[in-house]
Amino acid sequence: MRLASLLGPDLKQILKEDPDQVRELLEEIHPEDLADIIGELDADEAAELLARMPAEDAAPIFERLEGDEQEEIAELMPPESVAQIASEMAPDDRADLFSVLPEAMGDAILERLEHIDPEGAEDVREIEKWPSTSAGHLMTTAYVNVAPDVTVAAAIEAVRAHAENHKENIYNVYALEHGDKLAGIASLRDLLLAKSYEPLADILRTNVISVKPEEDQEEVARKMAKYDLNVMPVVDDNGQILGVITIDDIIDVLTLEQTEDVQKLGGIEPLDMPYFRTSFLTFIKKRGVWLFVLFFGEFFTQTALRHYDPVFEAIHGAAYYVPLLISAGGNSGSQSSTLVIRGMAVGEIKLRDWWRILIREAGMGLVLGLGLALVGFGRVLMYPEQHADFALTVAITLVGIVMTGCTVGAMLPIMLKRIGMDPATSSTPFIASLVDVLGIVIFVHVAKIVMSAVLAGAH
Amino acid sequence: MRLASLLGPDLKQILKEDPDQVRELLEEIHPEDLADIIGELDADEAAELLARMPAEDAAPIFERLEGDEQEEIAELMPPESVAQIASEMAPDDRADLFSVLPEAMGDAILERLEHIDPEGAEDVREIEKWPSTSAGHLMTTAYVNVAPDVTVAAAIEAVRAHAENHKENIYNVYALEHGDKLAGIASLRDLLLAKSYEPLADILRTNVISVKPEEDQEEVARKMAKYDLNVMPVVDDNGQILGVITIDDIIDVLTLEQTEDVQKLGGIEPLDMPYFRTSFLTFIKKRGVWLFVLFFGEFFTQTALRHYDPVFEAIHGAAYYVPLLISAGGNSGSQSSTLVIRGMAVGEIKLRDWWRILIREAGMGLVLGLGLALVGFGRVLMYPEQHADFALTVAITLVGIVMTGCTVGAMLPIMLKRIGMDPATSSTPFIASLVDVLGIVIFVHVAKIVMSAVLAGAH
Repeated sequence: MRLASLLGPDLKQILKEDPDQVRELLEEIHPEDLADIIGELDADEAAELLARMPAEDAAPIFERLEGDEQEEIAELMPPESVAQIASEMAPDDRADLFSVLPEAMGDAILERLEHIDPEGAEDVREIEKWPSTSAGHLMTTAYVNVAPDVTVAAAIEAVRAHAENHKENIYNVYALEHGDKLAGIASLRDLLLAKSYEPLADILRTNVISVKPEEDQEEVARKMAKYDLNVMPVVDDNGQILGVITIDDIIDVLTLEQTEDVQKLGGIEPLDMPYFRTSFLTFIKKRGVWLFVLFFGEFFTQTALRHYDPVFEAIHGAAYYVPLLISAGGNSGSQSSTLVIRGMAVGEIKLRDWWRILIREAGMGLVLGLGLALVGFGRVLMYPEQHADFALTVAITLVGIVMTGCTVGAMLPIMLKRIGMDPATSSTPFIASLVDVLGIVIFVHVAKIVMSAVLAGAH
Repeated sequence: MRLASLLGPDLKQILKEDPDQVRELLEEIHPEDLADIIGELDADEAAELLARMPAEDAAPIFERLEGDEQEEIAELMPPESVAQIASEMAPDDRADLFSVLPEAMGDAILERLEHIDPEGAEDVREIEKWPSTSAGHLMTTAYVNVAPDVTVAAAIEAVRAHAENHKENIYNVYALEHGDKLAGIASLRDLLLAKSYEPLADILRTNVISVKPEEDQEEVARKMAKYDLNVMPVVDDNGQILGVITIDDIIDVLTLEQTEDVQKLGGIEPLDMPYFRTSFLTFIKKRGVWLFVLFFGEFFTQTALRHYDPVFEAIHGAAYYVPLLISAGGNSGSQSSTLVIRGMAVGEIKLRDWWRILIREAGMGLVLGLGLALVGFGRVLMYPEQHADFALTVAITLVGIVMTGCTVGAMLPIMLKRIGMDPATSSTPFIASLVDVLGIVIFVHVAKIVMSAVLAGAH
């Protein structure tokens, strides 16, 4: 940011006078930093600058802009320039660009790309046909492939030829048999350690970890993390290689998925954009949905309280303890649901573990509830107008409520997942309303038993 | 898991009969899968198997076990065997092992390592001296270094020599001047593209992105993600290289940090272990802290309600609306705090943006509050015993409460961060109590104004 504001005006001046200078700048400044600077300019200035640069210099900057910045800037550039830049982009970044562009504009640019770089246009179609959060959509079609019967020296030569045309990192050589079937891989390190006249087949690894194109990106991330992979091939049901997924895209996936999970837990429909880029109206929609659902859910607390009006009339001040009591249930419930939802997300908790969790959570609810009960008991006795039987009612209620919170909070996400719903989205509102209403019911029934004398007198 | 239960018993049999067979297994099965299998065995069986294997075969399996599994198994093995295995581990994994071992045991093993592999022991000390969440603790001391004045061919030879002794991926060659000062880097790709007789200096990149050893691992992750790096050098204030951090460790850091963030937002002190490995007592402590803090905070709701007893006495049924009303504030507050906390975590929101956020959140609170007010107004009128003036009170209160929730929820994390506290940990309890109590105050004061006639009659 500092760099951006320092260099912004100078950069504009430099590039206006001589757009070719960007090449020298790129030697000095990382394209990510140049993208930061371009991102801070007005969209029309950025569009003008990028259109004036040679496409192969503009591409590494353009591909590092945020999706919405790309869209905004591309709209202000001649489609021909965008197509030129797109043809110089990495295949996966190029496909990403087309998925952020409005359809008509994307089609117009893709048509032009067809003329400049038919293979690049074909790659876009191949990647775009997979769902946006699948392995197929994450992959790049640029990888080094050779026949399995070449020598190590020939494989190294293939790497060299590939590197001259592509800017991405290269980790592996993929040996493909007839019909693009993946026969095995060799890493650059394997190639360097082998003798150059050795047959590649001798050093090929055949137990390759791969994903299917339709697999979800979270599964891709989990596999790559488990096996410490920097790159993983995408292979279809016939064993044909379609592309490879590189680790840098996985880091982005992890951060994005995490933001979504956190937003879901906070009771917000996941936003697609950063805070300041999300429009006011989008916020109202994404927040409003759950705020209204939760509001309707809480209607039941009022209904329940009104239903038990005679009890609350008879025990003066009891209604004032309701928020305190039900919040203890809500808090313990959200602790349990958080633990279970996160545990399922990282694979530590499986559906079949449900009964072990139920037992643990009931036990924790009991211990934590007893702790709060002790405090609650003392708290009630601080008031001279309240008697020990009401203090006992509060204490027993707390044990019941916290046990309910822990077990409901832990079991609901598991049940939701079991029936195919997203536990992170759906748990919060259900738990909140359910635990609150159950809390009131528990409170009243404990009171009816413990304070039967008081209540009998009232009737 | 499937694989593990299928192979477990067979594997035990195979390895008992001939521990050397593990070498052939390692050719077929990924060490991560073998680690899964070993992790499912009883600790004493696992210890026996690992101790019987040749250390260089045991190391890739042992280093992939979870920290607590390593500890449990290492305790059951002769210290000599653990030291042998440690000497074959990657330097960063080796240092991690010593940070999970109990101190006395770690010292005993380190002493033995000193004899077998003095350099390895030295590496452990170098890495261990940095705080456990710092760049220095994440780095490995295994990297390829050459003098800057060699040829490309000599640099490739250095890579080959390094690869023969180390199993990690190799991405770069580091050119070091006198006293380990980092002069520049060349990637394997740069080396392959250059002519072998070219001086390395001609292809060295000098604008290297690096971190200082004391920097936090989250900052390391952010930098590597931004610049799409697979490896990043750790350089001290004098420009000396201390080690390198590889991307696979960063993926683990991201997942761990995310789990911590989610747990904090769910009102739990971050656990250090997976759900089923966390002891009951640890859970009680980590959950109990916040459950009690939140419970004490909610005392104020009861105090406030009791304080306004005359008002609630005068408006029959008003107290029953309290949970409904304050939960609207709590929900909108947790939405806002989630957005701001996550936004700050990923760097989208800076402290200086506070007033822009305040304006947006107040606006959102107004619109969302008006929406809920409309529903709430209708809801109250559904009951024949309530009059329009009470419905109006509920409606106005909802606008006030939701606006309070949004603004307090958004501002508190920013203030907490400003004074150096962790917003994710501290926001939830403060917001919950503050918004609930403010909600009650708003409700009563709106009632006093709108329903002054009713309340005057009551006195």
